[in-house]
Amino acid sequence: MTIITQGGINNDLRKRVLGIILGLPPFMVFIVLSPWTLMGVFMCLSFLSLQEYWKMIDPERSPIPLWLTLYIVVLVYFPLWNAYPILQRVLWYGFFLSLMLWSMNDLTKVLQRSGAYLWGSLYCVFFPSFWVRVGVEYSRWTLLFFALLVWTNDIMAYLIGKKWGYHKIVPSLSPQKSWEGFWGGFVATVICSLVLGCLWMRFSPMKSLASGLLLAPLAFIGDLFESALKRQAGIKDSGKFLPGHGGLLDRFDAFFAVGPLVYLLNHL
Amino acid sequence: MTIITQGGINNDLRKRVLGIILGLPPFMVFIVLSPWTLMGVFMCLSFLSLQEYWKMIDPERSPIPLWLTLYIVVLVYFPLWNAYPILQRVLWYGFFLSLMLWSMNDLTKVLQRSGAYLWGSLYCVFFPSFWVRVGVEYSRWTLLFFALLVWTNDIMAYLIGKKWGYHKIVPSLSPQKSWEGFWGGFVATVICSLVLGCLWMRFSPMKSLASGLLLAPLAFIGDLFESALKRQAGIKDSGKFLPGHGGLLDRFDAFFAVGPLVYLLNHL
Repeated sequence: MTIITQGGINNDLRKRVLGIILGLPPFMVFIVLSPWTLMGVFMCLSFLSLQEYWKMIDPERSPIPLWLTLYIVVLVYFPLWNAYPILQRVLWYGFFLSLMLWSMNDLTKVLQRSGAYLWGSLYCVFFPSFWVRVGVEYSRWTLLFFALLVWTNDIMAYLIGKKWGYHKIVPSLSPQKSWEGFWGGFVATVICSLVLGCLWMRFSPMKSLASGLLLAPLAFIGDLFESALKRQAGIKDSGKFLPGHGGLLDRFDAFFAVGPLVYLLNHL
Repeated sequence: MTIITQGGINNDLRKRVLGIILGLPPFMVFIVLSPWTLMGVFMCLSFLSLQEYWKMIDPERSPIPLWLTLYIVVLVYFPLWNAYPILQRVLWYGFFLSLMLWSMNDLTKVLQRSGAYLWGSLYCVFFPSFWVRVGVEYSRWTLLFFALLVWTNDIMAYLIGKKWGYHKIVPSLSPQKSWEGFWGGFVATVICSLVLGCLWMRFSPMKSLASGLLLAPLAFIGDLFESALKRQAGIKDSGKFLPGHGGLLDRFDAFFAVGPLVYLLNHL
């Protein structure tokens, strides 16, 4: 089994590394350049991820999810809403009502549409919007610091899990995740947050430590939940997206999930 | 068919009327008495409805939904949170994370638990909390006016639907709902809102008219969605709650759904 997939692993690793090398520099430039490019890059990320998520769950072609995605992305990110709280509330209520109406269109898919779409909106749009808030309300370098922690956790968990990962956490859901990988990522994140937090960010040792300690497990929970939701909602055609579903959402899974945490850590 | 269920209809009608006569006066007294009794009565309503909703969807006995219900009711209603926005945000994030963790406990029920529970929280706790806001921020008599509109719509739609309802709207989902009943309730609500709004509330004719015009269709959509969600989520044991499921939630279905609308109407 290991021998058969060895090539696959190396290939996967190569793709991952290539993705990071090609994707990271422009992403970081957009984040640091200005609040507007920061917001733009996150709006695109949210839009594409939610579309991707939705195509996995409901492969039926319909323009409604596209419009709903546009609607929720603009509603969550557009900063001018804060000046019009009532308009914002009307639009939120409108979003819920639209979701209700659309999901009732097909009575066999009510829960799948309304429930899975609502979670998708939370996960792909609402949670990552807190990253933008961190960048706008604090500093875009703080945002980068936390992003580095998430990526450290991601990459180290992957590498250590590949090398020494024998004890699977949830084999039925995510066969790649092992306890060894989780703890490897956890320890690497804590070290990274302590060193960078104290030396670069000038955080107190307490805050630096808390960042690492909380970030790794929450990233893990969010990541896992996403997989579980996708897996269960698309239960009828799970074969379709299981082999190599290395989309945008899978790269940003953990990143999205910890958005509110990063925001809250900066507040405390 | 009509002959066989005739007794059932009369029985049902008698129960409805009895429920209103027995339940309405104490409910109205609690609403008008003080902001605290108003909040207390709505917290109880939300708590009991969400528990009822959940027992229909997942009859498995577990203490977790009970704790989550308590958590979300206190989180949404407790007015002191407004003074501690960060604590409120931490608790919201905690709610989402708890919901994720709990639903992943059983991988065959991830969407059912996370999606249906999230909608249940929105529907039974978040939406009705706007009624309390109307009572606290405006006046408790305004709240009563809108409540009367919802009940007028409910009762007239029921009575007219029973008498002349031949054209079913969604026979597969809610066999009792007919177009005749819907329009009967709609017209009654608009008349009621125009008369009471202008004479009692001293609203402008425009606002009075808008209240009636918007309230009836939105109550209908919310009501229907709730049925659809319950029906689909409990698809395996739909037989269990279909015969005479006249619980608390079914009496307050439409009432809950229009909470945000009533709040927004007062703002505009």
